[in-house]
Amino acid sequence: MIGRKDVEAAWGLIRPHVRRTPVIELPAGSLGFGSVSALKLESLQVSGTFKGRGAFHKLLASKVPPAGIIAASGGNHGVAAAYAARVLGHKAEIFVPTISSPAKVARLKSYGAIVHQIGAVYAEARAASEKRAAETGALMVQAYEDPVVFAGAGSVALEFAEQATFDTLLVAVGGGGLIAGCAAAIGEGTKIVAVETEGTPTLHEALRAGRPVDVKISGIAADALGASRIGVPNFEVAAKLVRESVLVSDDAVRKAQRALWEELHVVAEPSGATGLAALMAGAYRPAPGERVATLICGANTEPGSVV
Amino acid sequence: MIGRKDVEAAWGLIRPHVRRTPVIELPAGSLGFGSVSALKLESLQVSGTFKGRGAFHKLLASKVPPAGIIAASGGNHGVAAAYAARVLGHKAEIFVPTISSPAKVARLKSYGAIVHQIGAVYAEARAASEKRAAETGALMVQAYEDPVVFAGAGSVALEFAEQATFDTLLVAVGGGGLIAGCAAAIGEGTKIVAVETEGTPTLHEALRAGRPVDVKISGIAADALGASRIGVPNFEVAAKLVRESVLVSDDAVRKAQRALWEELHVVAEPSGATGLAALMAGAYRPAPGERVATLICGANTEPGSVV
Repeated sequence: MIGRKDVEAAWGLIRPHVRRTPVIELPAGSLGFGSVSALKLESLQVSGTFKGRGAFHKLLASKVPPAGIIAASGGNHGVAAAYAARVLGHKAEIFVPTISSPAKVARLKSYGAIVHQIGAVYAEARAASEKRAAETGALMVQAYEDPVVFAGAGSVALEFAEQATFDTLLVAVGGGGLIAGCAAAIGEGTKIVAVETEGTPTLHEALRAGRPVDVKISGIAADALGASRIGVPNFEVAAKLVRESVLVSDDAVRKAQRALWEELHVVAEPSGATGLAALMAGAYRPAPGERVATLICGANTEPGSVV
Repeated sequence: MIGRKDVEAAWGLIRPHVRRTPVIELPAGSLGFGSVSALKLESLQVSGTFKGRGAFHKLLASKVPPAGIIAASGGNHGVAAAYAARVLGHKAEIFVPTISSPAKVARLKSYGAIVHQIGAVYAEARAASEKRAAETGALMVQAYEDPVVFAGAGSVALEFAEQATFDTLLVAVGGGGLIAGCAAAIGEGTKIVAVETEGTPTLHEALRAGRPVDVKISGIAADALGASRIGVPNFEVAAKLVRESVLVSDDAVRKAQRALWEELHVVAEPSGATGLAALMAGAYRPAPGERVATLICGANTEPGSVV
């Protein structure tokens, strides 16, 4: 199981290629609740989400063959892999399910990637990508089920802890890459809380069952958080270090998106506002004096969709 | 004429009420040009623009009567004055021209202000506000033509200089509040460049004439940059400390708005992207090695309008 040292090493490797994203400190009473201390705008990361960190780490830590890289993704990981491949000079083929937003597909193409839209859900796109990688010999870059990828993602937690002081970090969960990386990075000393929508309870159900289980996915965040099963190495880290798991409604996510725009002029996609939604809706209730932080982890959406 | 010490004092007074806005450092080659060093996201300031700083300073440095405050504004100053009045517990009446965007008017009302939409241009709304202030005895909070207001605005430059290193600061100009404050704050050691749209050349024409002159305003930024005459104390500071004045087209502003969204996931209103537009369009051409910074100074717009 990877730990803080692995995340520190990953951060050292990717640092020249990723952005130190800004943090906004919020006074008590902001956004209608009393206790958040800081939001990290990882939505301003290269490629538009935290996924840029993991993709760069995978490509920098691997020998990439002439056939380049292949990724399958609900969208954000694909964008990140395509971006990193372009920057580092590799070919990229990206497999996405047909539900992926037009904004995400357009962005993939703008990075020079070949885009394959296959399957109604992520699992089908992933199966097609694995078949293709076996044919071409390209490096398969997993969206989340790879400690090399999530060690890169975890660098966001080390960076955040340098920028602000907090007791608790709320993290949105899809396949478990971001939360596994954050937990490995700072989970020994910081309370890590998992937040999922009611339609994408992948980690929540796995924690109840004591092992990764298949979950039926639906709702507003299905695009970015819609992995139907938590990753195996991700679950291993999460089961040990995630201290609480909460669910929020799609309506709470929409309210958090609107509040981010109206109060802060920040655009977030649904998954990017999910951590904040848990605070605003009271799904997670901090103790008096508890300093809570969360990541605004992505903004790959149409900007007009947030109001 | 106010100077750096006045801006430092203003910053000390307003600091508990305003946000330390984040800075994004950009590597060479970002956004299609070679030399920008840093963007300050003042669009994330309380009230959505840099105007929050000046409004808080005016209200904190003045004795506010029971009749409260009155402001006239193309929108952003009114929003800032209403926001500051609400936070500090004063009544507010805001006068805006009829061209002000629905987003800005809705925001004013959400802060509890009484909104008067009067006149096709700013000057008419201002005349109505002055008449009303004479009747009620309320404190008139000028949008820009007041050293107390622009000393507050200038705190953004002191803060920016703490966060990043730059030789040159590009500042969008409307009535001249932001640039007068920034020039007073750091203009002795930093090259201050004024940027206006071709439809709102208020400072540009004043500098050519050697005195404030009336300008016919039009175009994409008329709402926020459309003061028809530069303020007198503002011109005094600008004439001494602004080293270059450039104009950009509305099309260049639109391209800068789109680039901010597509590359950084930042939403800016037209005036907020005007400084960046001068770099992207080559209206300002830095010397080799010159470190250039600019303020993304506002985001009071419909988020869907930027793409």
